[in-house]
Amino acid sequence: MTNLTLEDARRVIAAAEAKATEIGQPMNIAVVDSGGNLVAHVRQDGAWIGSVNISINKAWTSKAFDISTKDLGDNSQPNQQFFGIQNTNGGKVAIFAGGIPLSRDGVVVGAVGVSGGSGEQDHSVAEAGVAGF
Amino acid sequence: MTNLTLEDARRVIAAAEAKATEIGQPMNIAVVDSGGNLVAHVRQDGAWIGSVNISINKAWTSKAFDISTKDLGDNSQPNQQFFGIQNTNGGKVAIFAGGIPLSRDGVVVGAVGVSGGSGEQDHSVAEAGVAGF
Amino acid sequence: MTNLTLEDARRVIAAAEAKATEIGQPMNIAVVDSGGNLVAHVRQDGAWIGSVNISINKAWTSKAFDISTKDLGDNSQPNQQFFGIQNTNGGKVAIFAGGIPLSRDGVVVGAVGVSGGSGEQDHSVAEAGVAGF
Amino acid sequence: MTNLTLEDARRVIAAAEAKATEIGQPMNIAVVDSGGNLVAHVRQDGAWIGSVNISINKAWTSKAFDISTKDLGDNSQPNQQFFGIQNTNGGKVAIFAGGIPLSRDGVVVGAVGVSGGSGEQDHSVAEAGVAGF
Repeated sequence: MTNLTLEDARRVIAAAEAKATEIGQPMNIAVVDSGGNLVAHVRQDGAWIGSVNISINKAWTSKAFDISTKDLGDNSQPNQQFFGIQNTNGGKVAIFAGGIPLSRDGVVVGAVGVSGGSGEQDHSVAEAGVAGF
Repeated sequence: MTNLTLEDARRVIAAAEAKATEIGQPMNIAVVDSGGNLVAHVRQDGAWIGSVNISINKAWTSKAFDISTKDLGDNSQPNQQFFGIQNTNGGKVAIFAGGIPLSRDGVVVGAVGVSGGSGEQDHSVAEAGVAGF
Repeated sequence: MTNLTLEDARRVIAAAEAKATEIGQPMNIAVVDSGGNLVAHVRQDGAWIGSVNISINKAWTSKAFDISTKDLGDNSQPNQQFFGIQNTNGGKVAIFAGGIPLSRDGVVVGAVGVSGGSGEQDHSVAEAGVAGF
Repeated sequence: MTNLTLEDARRVIAAAEAKATEIGQPMNIAVVDSGGNLVAHVRQDGAWIGSVNISINKAWTSKAFDISTKDLGDNSQPNQQFFGIQNTNGGKVAIFAGGIPLSRDGVVVGAVGVSGGSGEQDHSVAEAGVAGF
């Protein structure tokens, strides 16, 4: 299986939602497949509407470059090797924490993207999603 | 309640999914709230990737104009009163069947958008979603 | 194999190029994979520069909806069920002949898109590409 | 000859591919002509899908300003003379390493763009492409 299913995505989202509820911060959570295309998205009640787009783009970015958006962000600051990458791909590249690849047998088959809180919160909720995968 | 919740959206999506499975056509299903902002989206396994955007835009359009995209489409053909509306709003206006408003006590509080089959199929799956609301 | 490789794409392009040369019309030829992402593109010497984008979008569209752009176009004329689809997906939907899905064992694993001549020429060169797959 | 041909582009791409294979990092490689228009692109198996756009834009940028994207990047950091250039031209300007002009008899007739690894890797693969020209 070199891709993921809607059932996989729902399992990831459920785990991420549980974590968001635990820390008391409503989130947008998105999952994309191996081609970077959206499989599922939820916005928890009270989560920021500006984060719909961000959660989807974080998931896309993590799959598009097979890297967490946190790590990509470290490389995309001024004077770093990828500074400017945030202006490519028609504005779909997110360079702050909250997107993490989803791997099966060592192959990236999709990604989860979370947006709605601090960078640290977003990343920890995404990690919970990965653990649920 | 002048808005809808994630739980509402999931109930709508579940009903729409059941109908899509019944007719054997995998679908993208999206629900937006009273602000036109995405609450939840799913792409069933095997559904068209080009329909991710369309399902979301059908939902947005139905709420944006408080009308089904089927009816809006009838008014947006060449020589009709809204011809050209599909070029507005940054490309978010969908003018073909599959988007239907979600109302509570006579007030439109959101909308469902479905894409993945023929116009008739999309509309019938959206209707099933409305019935589930 | 639910996807296609660069070697597959090159075989498709070579067959399409041969046909374009045979009919004396230089073409842009593009191949996308199962996720709709570009695998390879060539513009033959003398082919229209405006067709770079079109060839890529025809390939994307054929995979995005698992249909030839010729057939999609028939359904997207005024008063047809998909009229307006050309305004979705950020302008990536091409609704005129030249894009055809690439299937393996009955599953669409990518698509070829051709642009540079008449609709009939584009479609016939795309067909040659499919035959080469 | 004030322009380059598809045959030229293929020679550049073949040389770049060989280098990418040698360093074990799959790449996206694109070549544009004197008008900045795409002549050919390949994505090696396993290369990042987010780098399709970047490779093409690096090539476009190098021709558009007759400079390597590495050098342009040095001038586009905060407080440098071209800071902000990455927001121009509809998002097509890439300001990180991997794009290099292709010259014939001292005249820039096109450019190669590479994306898929570190900035250093991308630049070295682009240099191999230039050497193959």
